[in-house]
Amino acid sequence: MSPSEPTIRFGIMGCADIARKVSRAINLAPNARIAAVASRSLEKAAAFARANNLPADAKIYGSYESLLDDPDIDVAYLPLPTTLHLKWATLAAQKKKHVLLEKPVAVTVAELDQILAACEANGVQFMDGTMWVHHPRTAKMREFLDDKHRFGELGTIHSCFTFAAPDSFLKDNIRVKPDLDSLGALGDAGWYGVRAILWAAGYHLPKTAVATRATVLSEQGVILACGASLHWEDGKSATFHCSFLTHMTMFLTAIGTQGTLQLNDFIIPFEEHEASFSTASQARFNDQVTGWEPGPVTEVVAIDGVPQEVCMIGEMARLVGEIKASGAGKVEMEWGMRSRKTQQVLNAVKESIEKGFVPVQIA
Amino acid sequence: MSPSEPTIRFGIMGCADIARKVSRAINLAPNARIAAVASRSLEKAAAFARANNLPADAKIYGSYESLLDDPDIDVAYLPLPTTLHLKWATLAAQKKKHVLLEKPVAVTVAELDQILAACEANGVQFMDGTMWVHHPRTAKMREFLDDKHRFGELGTIHSCFTFAAPDSFLKDNIRVKPDLDSLGALGDAGWYGVRAILWAAGYHLPKTAVATRATVLSEQGVILACGASLHWEDGKSATFHCSFLTHMTMFLTAIGTQGTLQLNDFIIPFEEHEASFSTASQARFNDQVTGWEPGPVTEVVAIDGVPQEVCMIGEMARLVGEIKASGAGKVEMEWGMRSRKTQQVLNAVKESIEKGFVPVQIA
Repeated sequence: MSPSEPTIRFGIMGCADIARKVSRAINLAPNARIAAVASRSLEKAAAFARANNLPADAKIYGSYESLLDDPDIDVAYLPLPTTLHLKWATLAAQKKKHVLLEKPVAVTVAELDQILAACEANGVQFMDGTMWVHHPRTAKMREFLDDKHRFGELGTIHSCFTFAAPDSFLKDNIRVKPDLDSLGALGDAGWYGVRAILWAAGYHLPKTAVATRATVLSEQGVILACGASLHWEDGKSATFHCSFLTHMTMFLTAIGTQGTLQLNDFIIPFEEHEASFSTASQARFNDQVTGWEPGPVTEVVAIDGVPQEVCMIGEMARLVGEIKASGAGKVEMEWGMRSRKTQQVLNAVKESIEKGFVPVQIA
Repeated sequence: MSPSEPTIRFGIMGCADIARKVSRAINLAPNARIAAVASRSLEKAAAFARANNLPADAKIYGSYESLLDDPDIDVAYLPLPTTLHLKWATLAAQKKKHVLLEKPVAVTVAELDQILAACEANGVQFMDGTMWVHHPRTAKMREFLDDKHRFGELGTIHSCFTFAAPDSFLKDNIRVKPDLDSLGALGDAGWYGVRAILWAAGYHLPKTAVATRATVLSEQGVILACGASLHWEDGKSATFHCSFLTHMTMFLTAIGTQGTLQLNDFIIPFEEHEASFSTASQARFNDQVTGWEPGPVTEVVAIDGVPQEVCMIGEMARLVGEIKASGAGKVEMEWGMRSRKTQQVLNAVKESIEKGFVPVQIA
């Protein structure tokens, strides 16, 4: 933080598990601090504050409204069930709070559009809670994908995120309740795969999504596992698979005409202190076809004590600081557009599932 | 080789690139030797023998027929274009030669069935030329997949093999000529992905194949890139992608309820002298969701100077030795069945492409 950089004040709206990690990140970010926490119950908010080392002067609120009415808060962080996003993110924007919204950002694109419109109308910054895109590794991987000599033109991307949710999760977690998050594994785990695909594709939207028949629905109709292929007009293609039903697994493979990027921990790196990825360029088999030359190279990125979620908070606080210094004209619209494209693809995949795995055009 | 193990005599029918690697393997296998090479031209066969260190007493034939008429040959190795397999593999079996057939083994399942029937009727062993299944690493990976504690029940498999073929290949190689190999990338690169999926699934056939719309056809209608999802009756699913159009890339990810197997060089290991794969079991995020515990483990398998293609030749020679010692009742039918299941899936994917990416039942 430069000496003149202001400390941005975050208010945490809700005590979901993920809020613990984000609280730690706000505490660690040099340009941010936790100014308040709110829950529907004062006791729950107070217990959260104690358990998560919130600063002694952080305010404790027994309702989301009261937090949003506090003029000493810059950013509202919303780790709420997806179906509540529309109401609370919109209200936060109307109360002139910048909005850091957990993913999936909404149930539908139409809902997200209302949230984004409220943010724009009120001159506040919007960002979703996808942490890995802020990891310094991601910038290094971007350099590789943008290198025409080492990577060439992007051809195809394959991505996966599954984890074996315990029975209690499959029964009671908000992510499998149709009234709280009807997107289920698609919105939760699939969000990351789709985002990674869009990231690799420079956020160019595919034209078509086709869900695979690997879809598993709960008795209540919530998606527990699914996958899809995505197709661009220029011939690029991608696949992803997501599931609550199989062991924790990630992969991201982006293949160009000249090179390949591969990693198996793109969402949460195996280790906090450093992260790696594999690149290969102009690889071929050796003359006897008994090995590769050159083989892939592992690139390691140290993170210098600033894990990806702290980078995310730091970037949000930096953007808000600029707006506070220079006015609403400084709002960075790109973050909202990236959330929107991710949501567009998710919704197209869901529609493909609902219509019997037919191709769905992405508007 | 035990002292009593006979040396099995191989005849090489055709001088394709892959025959160089297999010749070296036969030279290296302790229980096998090259007894003859045949080409449609005597000069070509002689040049091949000189260039590939064939034994001085190896016979040189100017026609495939003459090699098959030689009583001093046990195994015919056929690295011929796919459309020629039916004629020559059938004739080899009729001439009582055991058959080592390059992949894809046939253009259709019906053709393969004729080849397998000829082998059975003549009491000769059949094996296809898929080398990686013979690598000692594959046996180690099998142990992991069979471990109910470490891996659990198989849920989903994802596989990929692409390489960027040079323009000359895309114009002239036999694998893009409709009269020589109409399966194109599906038969060549896709063969490995499908085989890996079947291997992971214990060779249980999926019920349905659905090609993705990522199919690219040449002007002559040969498949240059494609992919598909496969679906089993018990809910298991798999995807694969194959292409001649993007950079050399492999991956195989098999996900169970308790563990995950991942490797990025399953067909040809990066290095000849050793090979590795990654396993993870009961992995989860740490309490702060900032890393994995436990993370995946890399298992390294040294190959002790016997690369996978030598293992393949050794296994074929061992089986043939047993038959020579004990009679045709010792023919191992499993290898033919594995080839057949691979071919069944390939043909279903091709049919799905031809019918507009509809689901195709696998008989």
